[in-house]
Amino acid sequence: MDIQYPLELVGTFVFAISGALAVRDREHDLFGAGFTGFITAIGGGSLRDILLGAYPLVWIGDVNFLYAIFAGILLAFIFPSALLKLRKTMFLFDTLGIGFFTVLGVEKAMSLGVRPEIAAIMGMFSAVMGGVIRDTLTNEIPILFRKEIYASACLAGAILYLVLNYFGLARDYNMLISIST
Amino acid sequence: MDIQYPLELVGTFVFAISGALAVRDREHDLFGAGFTGFITAIGGGSLRDILLGAYPLVWIGDVNFLYAIFAGILLAFIFPSALLKLRKTMFLFDTLGIGFFTVLGVEKAMSLGVRPEIAAIMGMFSAVMGGVIRDTLTNEIPILFRKEIYASACLAGAILYLVLNYFGLARDYNMLISIST
Amino acid sequence: MDIQYPLELVGTFVFAISGALAVRDREHDLFGAGFTGFITAIGGGSLRDILLGAYPLVWIGDVNFLYAIFAGILLAFIFPSALLKLRKTMFLFDTLGIGFFTVLGVEKAMSLGVRPEIAAIMGMFSAVMGGVIRDTLTNEIPILFRKEIYASACLAGAILYLVLNYFGLARDYNMLISIST
Repeated sequence: MDIQYPLELVGTFVFAISGALAVRDREHDLFGAGFTGFITAIGGGSLRDILLGAYPLVWIGDVNFLYAIFAGILLAFIFPSALLKLRKTMFLFDTLGIGFFTVLGVEKAMSLGVRPEIAAIMGMFSAVMGGVIRDTLTNEIPILFRKEIYASACLAGAILYLVLNYFGLARDYNMLISIST
Repeated sequence: MDIQYPLELVGTFVFAISGALAVRDREHDLFGAGFTGFITAIGGGSLRDILLGAYPLVWIGDVNFLYAIFAGILLAFIFPSALLKLRKTMFLFDTLGIGFFTVLGVEKAMSLGVRPEIAAIMGMFSAVMGGVIRDTLTNEIPILFRKEIYASACLAGAILYLVLNYFGLARDYNMLISIST
Repeated sequence: MDIQYPLELVGTFVFAISGALAVRDREHDLFGAGFTGFITAIGGGSLRDILLGAYPLVWIGDVNFLYAIFAGILLAFIFPSALLKLRKTMFLFDTLGIGFFTVLGVEKAMSLGVRPEIAAIMGMFSAVMGGVIRDTLTNEIPILFRKEIYASACLAGAILYLVLNYFGLARDYNMLISIST
């Protein structure tokens, strides 16, 4: 898919921004924000690939993801107030990103030959575990447990994707968005 | 072993129940309870297999484990008060499950050719790390640090198993129980 | 390298001591201290190898690391007050160990053919993630977020190492020390 690869990079970029901003709220410095942005961006996909034994991990095999993450972190650090003003837009992108990575996670798991039930869980993990790991490291109750609706939507989206399987990515992706929002 | 496979499924089922109940105590909803039950049930074994590089992970290769987990979570959600009344029985099963998974973990590690010292640690990890990950995610001090006796018993059981190695599973499994209780 | 292997064992030993002492401060018993010392000692390297898919993990393939860890834990448990008096010396060793494991992590990642940008991150992970996992399990804000200077120094050291690449380990290792302190 020609459009998928740039979308993955953009999604990673957005996750890095939101991860770095989450920490800024609580007065850490560049390195802390960077570390958290990095973990948020790679955590979900890395966990999925480690569980599936799918090596090399995406961001280790393709350095462009690292650049997307660094760009996101720097942007979050240099223009935090501008980005906080754009919070609504950011939230929309974050939600789109989550839906997108859910579908990607399901597809990747399916392509490795696992059962659809497992693939649905992998899709959800890809999308939400980055945030869970971030919250665990920063010693917060993961948002997952505070706003479960968000992860349930991912799981619902993943299952929906499997039901609609082969009716096309675009269509079911739209549905995902409508569920998530 | 004919009896081992159903026992593994039952053990996974019991772990999922106790994981899901742990969260219910603190007023989460179905999704939160399910997520925690799931992590508790798969965490220890997954960590063991990831450390050993033993792919595919058990629950990814065999969907029956997933069904056992879902059954446990649903049961915990539908009949929480009945299960809480059965707490003593549950605790017994949990303890049996922990002893059982310790031995299984040791055996699996040995079959992959690692040294017995490493296998003992893998046995303990299989049994206790699901609970440690659960407690970490829900932002509690892992019970491991509060009631160390419990993990020490696993390690003692694992070492005992290795000492008794080849004297038969049944015998040493009984001993494990007596240690754990 | 003839000197590298004993240094790795000594570094692992020192990490186990500092991990076990960190818990002692807060009144856990031998098992809790041992568990934490163990996680601190193996955490960073294990995470690096899991991310890189480099199996078997070092401490699983070579039981000497396990013995070094046990020796460190026992020492920390038997002579805590003597070790606490030696805190300054310990801190120096800890810092040296961190610098040393950073360089080792970078080298290992490079030898597996990943890009230098990724290798720098792997070097930092090897050195600091053991402590991050320890702090997360014991429910503290990881020291990484409180004293970022420490992890920044690792990353800087890793990058420096890559820049100086092939000018020899000894030289750049000295520089690392000067940065870290």
